[in-house]
Amino acid sequence: MTIEPARLPLMANAIRALSMDAVEAANSGHPGMPMGMADVATVLYTGHLKFDPTAPHWPDRDRFVLSAGHGSMLIYSLLYLTGYAAPTIDDIRNFRQLSSPCAGHPENFLLDGVECTTGPLGQGIAMAVGMAMAERHLNALFGDDLVDHRTWVIAGDGCLMEGINHEAIGLAGHLGLGKLNVLWDDNRITIDGATDLSTSEDIKARYRATGWHVTTCDGHDFADIERALQEAKADPRPSLIACRTLIGKGAPNKQGTSGVHGAALGTAEVAAARKELGWDAAPFEVPSDILADWRMAGEPGRLAHGTWAGHLEASPHKAEFVRRMAGDLPEGFSLDAHIAGLIASPQKIATRKASEIALGAINPMLPDTIGGSADLTGSNNTLAGGIGTFSKDDYAGRYVYYGIREFGMAAAMNGMALHGGVIPYGGTFLVFTDYARGAIRLSALQHCRVVYVMTHDSIGLGEDGPTHQPVEHLASLRAMPNLLVMRPADAVETAECWEIALRQKDRPTVLALTRQNLPQLRLEPGKNRSAKGGYRLKAAEGPRKVVILATGSEVQLAMACAARLEAQGIGVDVVSMVCTELFDEQDAAYRADILPDDVLIVSVEAASTFGWQRYTGAKGLNIGLDRFGASAPADDLFAHFGFTADKIVPQILNKLNA
Amino acid sequence: MTIEPARLPLMANAIRALSMDAVEAANSGHPGMPMGMADVATVLYTGHLKFDPTAPHWPDRDRFVLSAGHGSMLIYSLLYLTGYAAPTIDDIRNFRQLSSPCAGHPENFLLDGVECTTGPLGQGIAMAVGMAMAERHLNALFGDDLVDHRTWVIAGDGCLMEGINHEAIGLAGHLGLGKLNVLWDDNRITIDGATDLSTSEDIKARYRATGWHVTTCDGHDFADIERALQEAKADPRPSLIACRTLIGKGAPNKQGTSGVHGAALGTAEVAAARKELGWDAAPFEVPSDILADWRMAGEPGRLAHGTWAGHLEASPHKAEFVRRMAGDLPEGFSLDAHIAGLIASPQKIATRKASEIALGAINPMLPDTIGGSADLTGSNNTLAGGIGTFSKDDYAGRYVYYGIREFGMAAAMNGMALHGGVIPYGGTFLVFTDYARGAIRLSALQHCRVVYVMTHDSIGLGEDGPTHQPVEHLASLRAMPNLLVMRPADAVETAECWEIALRQKDRPTVLALTRQNLPQLRLEPGKNRSAKGGYRLKAAEGPRKVVILATGSEVQLAMACAARLEAQGIGVDVVSMVCTELFDEQDAAYRADILPDDVLIVSVEAASTFGWQRYTGAKGLNIGLDRFGASAPADDLFAHFGFTADKIVPQILNKLNA
Repeated sequence: MTIEPARLPLMANAIRALSMDAVEAANSGHPGMPMGMADVATVLYTGHLKFDPTAPHWPDRDRFVLSAGHGSMLIYSLLYLTGYAAPTIDDIRNFRQLSSPCAGHPENFLLDGVECTTGPLGQGIAMAVGMAMAERHLNALFGDDLVDHRTWVIAGDGCLMEGINHEAIGLAGHLGLGKLNVLWDDNRITIDGATDLSTSEDIKARYRATGWHVTTCDGHDFADIERALQEAKADPRPSLIACRTLIGKGAPNKQGTSGVHGAALGTAEVAAARKELGWDAAPFEVPSDILADWRMAGEPGRLAHGTWAGHLEASPHKAEFVRRMAGDLPEGFSLDAHIAGLIASPQKIATRKASEIALGAINPMLPDTIGGSADLTGSNNTLAGGIGTFSKDDYAGRYVYYGIREFGMAAAMNGMALHGGVIPYGGTFLVFTDYARGAIRLSALQHCRVVYVMTHDSIGLGEDGPTHQPVEHLASLRAMPNLLVMRPADAVETAECWEIALRQKDRPTVLALTRQNLPQLRLEPGKNRSAKGGYRLKAAEGPRKVVILATGSEVQLAMACAARLEAQGIGVDVVSMVCTELFDEQDAAYRADILPDDVLIVSVEAASTFGWQRYTGAKGLNIGLDRFGASAPADDLFAHFGFTADKIVPQILNKLNA
Repeated sequence: MTIEPARLPLMANAIRALSMDAVEAANSGHPGMPMGMADVATVLYTGHLKFDPTAPHWPDRDRFVLSAGHGSMLIYSLLYLTGYAAPTIDDIRNFRQLSSPCAGHPENFLLDGVECTTGPLGQGIAMAVGMAMAERHLNALFGDDLVDHRTWVIAGDGCLMEGINHEAIGLAGHLGLGKLNVLWDDNRITIDGATDLSTSEDIKARYRATGWHVTTCDGHDFADIERALQEAKADPRPSLIACRTLIGKGAPNKQGTSGVHGAALGTAEVAAARKELGWDAAPFEVPSDILADWRMAGEPGRLAHGTWAGHLEASPHKAEFVRRMAGDLPEGFSLDAHIAGLIASPQKIATRKASEIALGAINPMLPDTIGGSADLTGSNNTLAGGIGTFSKDDYAGRYVYYGIREFGMAAAMNGMALHGGVIPYGGTFLVFTDYARGAIRLSALQHCRVVYVMTHDSIGLGEDGPTHQPVEHLASLRAMPNLLVMRPADAVETAECWEIALRQKDRPTVLALTRQNLPQLRLEPGKNRSAKGGYRLKAAEGPRKVVILATGSEVQLAMACAARLEAQGIGVDVVSMVCTELFDEQDAAYRADILPDDVLIVSVEAASTFGWQRYTGAKGLNIGLDRFGASAPADDLFAHFGFTADKIVPQILNKLNA
């Protein structure tokens, strides 16, 4: 049973009708894109996309990414029409309402079939690059029988104008990701007006310049769309398909204008569009014959899924494949032996180096990791454990040279994590989280297990100066929901943090690591103390008057201050506050034990003091850096900015005596 | 007196010698780029760049941007050799030390002749686009006699790989900025190794695709470099000059490798390089004849400057030109009349709308402003006051359609502010400060007067959902040094904030503005109350037990809570905390008056509570949103997330009774 080509226009109109009805009911949303791309999407979903609506998590499904996420009604329509369990027609009626999974922009955590959260422009296509990388990698490991699928993207002019687009397509072209196909909604309209208001670029030439195959089609000619998709699939390079469309097609008075981009059409224009499209059905109703056609669209996928299930059953790799796709760590995975080695033989090393040796233990034990760096491999110490280069010539490799593309790297890592089967980690300098922040936020929002290896985490990087010295970055990342920010103080804590990060199935972690060497402070064997987020590294010897909270490279400084105060009979606890988010998740009794009411609480961190007052109270003492740094050797900077026991101890004494 | 062509290789070697000596002394830095680009830079500075070392602020000088800022010794060498007052040879000896203006990366606030701070890759070229825009604009206003100069950039592979490069060149190509010339250090080496490790792009084809003129030269053939620069100057489009170079040229064993990119050469290799270059002078010494040649390089510029000074004296526009280049506002500039109008006729409008009407008053009074938006003009309400479009056809226009290029927009605004003569402002959604954050940081670090018009500042934007709803953004921006973050509560405060922002000559401002309507709370005439950062909008009537701090759209909510509490006999102050940075700058007595010790302090802001504890203390109450938002109409979201008097008042009563 196949769908008659003559039925496609009717099926596409179902997308148009649902989209304009939903936007009209919400009086909010973007009807123009779904109406303009309805024909292309219909060809894709009826003849090319491999999917099984009854098994949305089937690992070998094609991935579809609506990079132009504001056109969310396109994917909601498609999921409903093809028979996914959700959204229901009531969900669509409640588009953009609190009760509905049909949010303003597609959210991967609300609906199966939404492979990633989109809306922040350009990131969808960049995540798709990561999905296509994960696919090729798993294909190289598990073979065509288990992994052989495409990644499809619908992108708008905005996605292609954003800088991340340049990073993403450069990476995809270089890596030769031939199973990635981008359908560009070439409608020549942006919110502000015609695209020629702000751009004169020859987009097709630019894609060709980065190693892509480029073709074009009339986005409203079904045969021409079919021809272009076939051409894209046949070409070994990633493909851009420029689909020339009329934004809002079907709305006779508004189509082709920016007026249809981001606002409801209005009653009169909806009525006119129904007439234009010959669509007689009531709002939110799809004629049963058209719905029946749509429900057939997933049939080839269901069959392919059945065949695939047979392959999996027969595969000697079944258990490993299932484990990896479930996101579980290998049984018995643990860094205990590595940590025991550190305890036995303490290391005075930078935490970036400690991270490297942890990775040297992790990567051989955990085949799921795919590492990389944005052109700072030797500085981020991200290449370890004997993993090979991931390249066009060897997709089995596990180390990605991302180039100078921080944002593109972070988004690709999100795509890999969302694809599943791999655990991505990647490095740059902590200060350049600013470049990647849009994607770090999507890691957190989408519940992605991504590990950000962010080295050179303070003025301790020294000579490179203020452009390279993070000051506000720890605070600004801690303010982000669902993100763990960890700043370990030595080699043992670094290993502990890695183990915690790898076990977070549903959130990302930033590891903030030093350039400079740090003494090993943890010398006793025992359980993972960093898991509490903050713990008492040293208990007061004299009567306790002070608790010093510190992180990373400043924990040793806190210990030095404590020693001086103890020598004066002042008892001091030192708390290593490795991860404030984990600390905040501890029960009240634990937190109160660490942060007692009746003492002076001091925070010491070579970074903005912003946010520390929630622990120290308004009457505590906050030692930090509330200005930009400077260029000089690290030791000179620490002294200059007051991070020495000589400068801190008198401040503590003054506070105690006040 | 002109410099003999035969002298150029010797002059270039002076750059190489100083660069390797300085990096060697610091045992830190990047010798490869200055050594590789020494020949190109020599041709540029001796025959093309218009500059006067005795008058580094001369407005009609060419702007030179070292986008590949890690090669900072290149510009330090050039400034010293051409006779700028600084750096001295001792400053260069102290390269990367605390006492020296020769920082690891060039800092505009440390040295004249350094037009902007570079190091974060890609931003130099993007700022240069803004400089070139400002130049064309002022040229259109003041004519060739006063403004007619070029902007030159040296960029590396990293600059061209970063996403912002795509945004910047797309804008430059579209705007036809023919006086912008980019010298690309095409050395095919990045830190991780050969560029082909991470990219396969045809960069020249990509530049052509965006409307650029492209030429190439042998970066070590002086005649060929000269030919290419002439060609670039003659072409009416912006030009990319691909300079094929050998990184670290002159270091016989390390040149052409990534080993010379970011580390000192070492004693042996420095000695070998001296031999290779035939350079006998002691470290940090430049033979007097070579220095004499270099000191002639600025001679044409000095003469041009003299001629120009005559033009200025004769110009009827002299006073206005001088005022604008000094960054002063026009005499008598004030929004008092506008604010008086609001007091006389209160407006219940969104603060984004209030910003628009403020701009309607500002733009006609203040010809210095150049506004714009990253494709959200109708949402950011940034087009006001009858200003026309800035385009290739009319550089006198004052409104820029930046396209979907948030990062590129912000960097261009930095470039405009650094050029001087204009005051840039630009809009996007507050959540997309994440995309522009790297440039916002450089606004703050470089002391740029840039006004960020960031609308849709909370869950109050409603249906677009969590990808578009800022949560952590206010906190993360407040943590950044030297940046004012203002969140006005009504139309009067919005106008006050605009006036404050425009008067900050040395720092940027973020205006966080609502999508939704807000009642006007300020109804009495008087001075600019927002200037204190936080002020008592309503004083307690009953015995004061509570102070509520709120910002923006939550100030009305605080007022509603206060009214209910007062009805129960509980006195409540309401403080509008418009700008925490300005509040923190007030004297201790003022701050203590606003934040008394003996009451419950409550913060109310529809955003992360992170950071508010510095005012409320650990025992205060923080009403906020420490999770991602959701998609629904704004009122539903405020109710759902607890931002109603019904939900807040009981929490305050509980705290009071605890």
